[in-house]
Amino acid sequence: MANKRTVFFVSDQTGVTAETMGHSLLTQFDGLDLSPVTLPFISTVDKAAQAVMRINSAAREDGARPVVFSTLVDDEVRAVVMQAECLYLDFFEAFLGPMEQELGQSSSHALGRAHGMTDVAAYTARINATNFALANDDGSQTRDYERADVILVGVSRSGKTPTCVYMALQYGIYAANYPLVDDDLESRRLPAMLEPFRGKLFGLTIRPDRLQQIRQERRPDSRYSSIAQCNYEVRAAEQLLERYGIPFLDTTDTSIEEIASRVLERKGIGRRARP
Amino acid sequence: MANKRTVFFVSDQTGVTAETMGHSLLTQFDGLDLSPVTLPFISTVDKAAQAVMRINSAAREDGARPVVFSTLVDDEVRAVVMQAECLYLDFFEAFLGPMEQELGQSSSHALGRAHGMTDVAAYTARINATNFALANDDGSQTRDYERADVILVGVSRSGKTPTCVYMALQYGIYAANYPLVDDDLESRRLPAMLEPFRGKLFGLTIRPDRLQQIRQERRPDSRYSSIAQCNYEVRAAEQLLERYGIPFLDTTDTSIEEIASRVLERKGIGRRARP
Repeated sequence: MANKRTVFFVSDQTGVTAETMGHSLLTQFDGLDLSPVTLPFISTVDKAAQAVMRINSAAREDGARPVVFSTLVDDEVRAVVMQAECLYLDFFEAFLGPMEQELGQSSSHALGRAHGMTDVAAYTARINATNFALANDDGSQTRDYERADVILVGVSRSGKTPTCVYMALQYGIYAANYPLVDDDLESRRLPAMLEPFRGKLFGLTIRPDRLQQIRQERRPDSRYSSIAQCNYEVRAAEQLLERYGIPFLDTTDTSIEEIASRVLERKGIGRRARP
Repeated sequence: MANKRTVFFVSDQTGVTAETMGHSLLTQFDGLDLSPVTLPFISTVDKAAQAVMRINSAAREDGARPVVFSTLVDDEVRAVVMQAECLYLDFFEAFLGPMEQELGQSSSHALGRAHGMTDVAAYTARINATNFALANDDGSQTRDYERADVILVGVSRSGKTPTCVYMALQYGIYAANYPLVDDDLESRRLPAMLEPFRGKLFGLTIRPDRLQQIRQERRPDSRYSSIAQCNYEVRAAEQLLERYGIPFLDTTDTSIEEIASRVLERKGIGRRARP
């Protein structure tokens, strides 16, 4: 194991972009002992000076230069942070130059536009979509399938809810979900309320042993979490989906981001809101 | 208004990082007529060649070179996409070199690590936190405040639910929320069930006119959506929060990302899972 190395995500806003960027890059390196620190809202020269102190102090403690991922827009603020004892990787600095040239205009160097409220319509779309996902979640009374962009179907704990919520928050997609329960599986028929919406259906499935693990945490040693029940439900659900020609995806080794992205790709649904 | 310009987000994985990066940068330019297209899962030379065809075709249609934000890890795949008629901005290409030098090792150039399943523990934490947020949402029966990292309080439609869900999905934070209703506001006392958890409370407030707008969409022309009721609730809620010394934030002109980030910062809560 390498020595400890501190990683900073520095931003004049929330730090989400710097974190996304940094983690993506760091996954390309193995065996590092990293200690991540997010410094959000570094919007003034004073706050920048405080950030420098924290970075330099980590450099001394670790005996190694921290890696700083930065999304600082303001030139003065950036100039301060760049003085720190670190490998300084600035996202705006790297890309804004070529973009200005290509687009034939100067960038506004405006603070806090990333993830700001520049696009109120997209923001409202994401909030509305999130409320829709929660109102149309597993077992809820609301079944507003008319407005749904997609309806995820699958057995309990196959990943439907987190995927719906993620698609709503990230893309403003209206995603409902319907849990396939014993009655549905035994009848071997598509539930009647889903019939009019067959074009919107997408199935999620999961390996029975993983399902058993997840259910075991929730209701230990129940029929619900027995391997026999998990085997039965997964097999019956997959047969049902195949019989009706509903596309489906195994979520077992798949992140929420990837499940969401694959659902949108295979259903040909565009992103409604900007992330 | 400028001419139409197509923007591509090209990735061997979901495209989330490329989208986040691209949108952040594009907010720095005004008055562009952009048409965004995400091309996820470009993991082979064949798929790269198809991507090139789409990019070139957009270049011809727009009469302007598309801007391509890419997070391609594989050198061969990247070499193909770079041939397209476009401004090619590659995230890995720009930053991996300096990182390799600093960290004293070659990057693995492994596909699909960003947002992949490299960190199963973080993935499980995010799923569990999302389930916690939904189980402990507005008006639910579950009130598992012992396990909560933070409990958001505020009037109905002040932004509590999307913020809780976002903190769960993005950071694996256990966030519950409690709606302040008329009874709570009239008593002018902190609800008894919140008393033992005062250190975990954080308030969200909102401008009454914005609240009225949001509620009007939900239940038009009701007492609930009247400006008098919105004025009363917001004033009473803020007074209650102040009386008990509970920190709070106005969500009116604030994105979900920023609300979440400020809550974590002010409560001193660390990110539990990697985004």
